[in-house]
Amino acid sequence: VNGATLVVFSQDLDRALAALVIANGALALGGQATLFFTFWGLNVLRKDAPPPVAGKSFMDKMFGWMMPRGPSRLPLSNMHMAGLGTAMMKQRMAAKNLPNLPGLLADARRAGARLVACSMSMEAMGLRQEELIDGIEIGGVADFLGAASATRANLFI
Amino acid sequence: VNGATLVVFSQDLDRALAALVIANGALALGGQATLFFTFWGLNVLRKDAPPPVAGKSFMDKMFGWMMPRGPSRLPLSNMHMAGLGTAMMKQRMAAKNLPNLPGLLADARRAGARLVACSMSMEAMGLRQEELIDGIEIGGVADFLGAASATRANLFI
Amino acid sequence: VNGATLVVFSQDLDRALAALVIANGALALGGQATLFFTFWGLNVLRKDAPPPVAGKSFMDKMFGWMMPRGPSRLPLSNMHMAGLGTAMMKQRMAAKNLPNLPGLLADARRAGARLVACSMSMEAMGLRQEELIDGIEIGGVADFLGAASATRANLFI
Repeated sequence: VNGATLVVFSQDLDRALAALVIANGALALGGQATLFFTFWGLNVLRKDAPPPVAGKSFMDKMFGWMMPRGPSRLPLSNMHMAGLGTAMMKQRMAAKNLPNLPGLLADARRAGARLVACSMSMEAMGLRQEELIDGIEIGGVADFLGAASATRANLFI
Repeated sequence: VNGATLVVFSQDLDRALAALVIANGALALGGQATLFFTFWGLNVLRKDAPPPVAGKSFMDKMFGWMMPRGPSRLPLSNMHMAGLGTAMMKQRMAAKNLPNLPGLLADARRAGARLVACSMSMEAMGLRQEELIDGIEIGGVADFLGAASATRANLFI
Repeated sequence: VNGATLVVFSQDLDRALAALVIANGALALGGQATLFFTFWGLNVLRKDAPPPVAGKSFMDKMFGWMMPRGPSRLPLSNMHMAGLGTAMMKQRMAAKNLPNLPGLLADARRAGARLVACSMSMEAMGLRQEELIDGIEIGGVADFLGAASATRANLFI
């Protein structure tokens, strides 16, 4: 019952950090962790340098350009200050030996977290599986509800 | 245990879509779905053209003018861009045959979702029951906690 | 099963109000309530006039200056309008005899709520225990997961 099922809706760096810390904590305590990435949260999973994708509409491309690409480019929810605040926060956290998002994501995967990308959101955002990091499941709301029915720490982040 | 009890706190179109997709998923899987609308989330339930309401203070009227009226006028949490981004997102989702919020709300009600408006928030926001769409329950935190005690997918959105 | 375990991630006045109303409701119904304050949510717990703290870096001091200090200085998530909207909302809520955040916090503590400050976030934000109101536990993700495993209304706010 110490497992966690987390909807990662947001692309904020701080919220993504919170989600991964909770997921890794649940895994460390012997529970399961499922992260369900939806809407802006899909940007957490984007490759830094995605391959060109054929057949994308102009609109889909434009949304893709405007959204952050992957865990190293996410803004803070507060005090982003055109990137300055976010850069300062990352630097301070590194100086204090606090975890960073790419590291937490790698830890979670190594420890067996399920990372699921919401198929409906991928369509809405115009993102294709090959633009996301490898090894992501594609799923829907039934996957989220199924995972949530087996855990208690179920959060929308 | 596949039911969902969702606090809809936000008036963001994308968050409201997520809430309704989860609620409809829970209902489709045979679970219960309770949506508890509070603070800005009450704006999801507002009528497009509410009747004039007697006895509202100037402040209550002013808040009413400034807040979005109903599911067709909600902003995106991101890239709203003075309405342009939101209009583009709606158009793209329609073109891709993805669900829209008024349709999801109608589906949820048809499938038996409980829609509860938080009485304390209605007072704070200066909204009256006749300004909300018909058939909404008025309730309090005990209603939320009671519903949440019977479901697992309990989220604050 | 009517207990609540709430992650207070945000420093928004309206979200903090929602968290405390739910916590107090759970306590009134005989359940437990644990509030886990993390990231910006730590600002809810800050003293209005903290003692000077030795050994803070310039960066930690600067973050401290830029963040709101305590429950009376939090902004609304919406319509803050450089403080004007927030002041108007507080005044209206008081005029309508609705609860305020300092009162709700005091009620929660009197009724036995556990208030836990996330140790990792305190480091990231550069906040020390003596800058927070007295009687706050310091804890980590295992504390959150432990509390959440015993309650159903588990929310990320």
